[in-house]
Amino acid sequence: MSENVPGRPGRGRRPAAEVRAAVLAAAGRILLRDGMRAVTFDRVATEAGASKTTLYKWWPSPGALAAEAYFVRSRRVLELPDTGDVRADLITQLSAFVRWLKDEGAERPMSELVGAAQLDPDLARAWSTTYAQPRRELARERLRIAQRQGQLREDADLDIIVDQLWGACYHRLLVLKVPFDESIVARLVDHALYGAAPPRGGYR
Amino acid sequence: MSENVPGRPGRGRRPAAEVRAAVLAAAGRILLRDGMRAVTFDRVATEAGASKTTLYKWWPSPGALAAEAYFVRSRRVLELPDTGDVRADLITQLSAFVRWLKDEGAERPMSELVGAAQLDPDLARAWSTTYAQPRRELARERLRIAQRQGQLREDADLDIIVDQLWGACYHRLLVLKVPFDESIVARLVDHALYGAAPPRGGYR
Repeated sequence: MSENVPGRPGRGRRPAAEVRAAVLAAAGRILLRDGMRAVTFDRVATEAGASKTTLYKWWPSPGALAAEAYFVRSRRVLELPDTGDVRADLITQLSAFVRWLKDEGAERPMSELVGAAQLDPDLARAWSTTYAQPRRELARERLRIAQRQGQLREDADLDIIVDQLWGACYHRLLVLKVPFDESIVARLVDHALYGAAPPRGGYR
Repeated sequence: MSENVPGRPGRGRRPAAEVRAAVLAAAGRILLRDGMRAVTFDRVATEAGASKTTLYKWWPSPGALAAEAYFVRSRRVLELPDTGDVRADLITQLSAFVRWLKDEGAERPMSELVGAAQLDPDLARAWSTTYAQPRRELARERLRIAQRQGQLREDADLDIIVDQLWGACYHRLLVLKVPFDESIVARLVDHALYGAAPPRGGYR
């Protein structure tokens, strides 16, 4: 699939993948700058030099487009490194995650997307399948490596580790609505790795 | 403050505390049965036999009333016992919390309240100050006792424990949007207490 590019007559059709990338980049820029409500098909089509018809074909709603744009935009920022030390890598990634939210403007659009998703089942599905679950799978992959290397217990529940790291941050952002910053990260990781009970403990 | 009770002529004015409790109980019933949007001043006033003027005086918005009604309604269900064994008590409370959400109909109104709070700063304030932070303080109190009894490390961060228990549940409910049930609770508590790293670990 391809389409004529408005304002680029004579330059012919762009390949679909290129149009798709341009649309997602434009949606991501608008989302981070002006928030979820600014991501309309009209505005994104204009900014991306794409036709609205194309957007309607590819995304069921502006919310679904915003969720995917958020995933694409955050991908590079939220990479989980593998230096061989899972504690260090989790601290690196969670610090980047907190900066992304707090310093790079992602807190507002993320809160708006998750907020709106609670009242809109289609957006909930789009958010969960194009952002939240793929990100969880990326975290699981890194944790699986650590588990194979003996840095996590054999019976550790990787999904619970995800809940207790990134979920802890979302808890402060969305539920408690209390301020926090990167200074929490190392303690968060140490709690997830070593627990809150005195050292003599162990799984029962 | 008190007011005339519609439909109870001749029985005079009810004390303000009684009216307030009746209003919160009515709002809680409507919230659990029909969701956040059904909690309007009109409907709550009628169901509680109170005047709308009174509701306007006591709550800045129907959302603020719904948040407080949710707190009152959940209080008994969400009590944190103290049997002297923090692991057992956390499992008891978190199991009740998951049942409250999953079996007693609280998931929908909670999600709607937290969702709407992301798009409405006044509701965010009401939710945080009348529900989320008071509940965190109740959990902290129980954890403080456990810490004094040596069941938690002296340097354990009680707020992080709260994030890693209840926050983990909210993460699945609100962000991941994946199903879960009580069967997660014991593992969640064991992860928070004993960590995901092999037993030789300890805080660095």
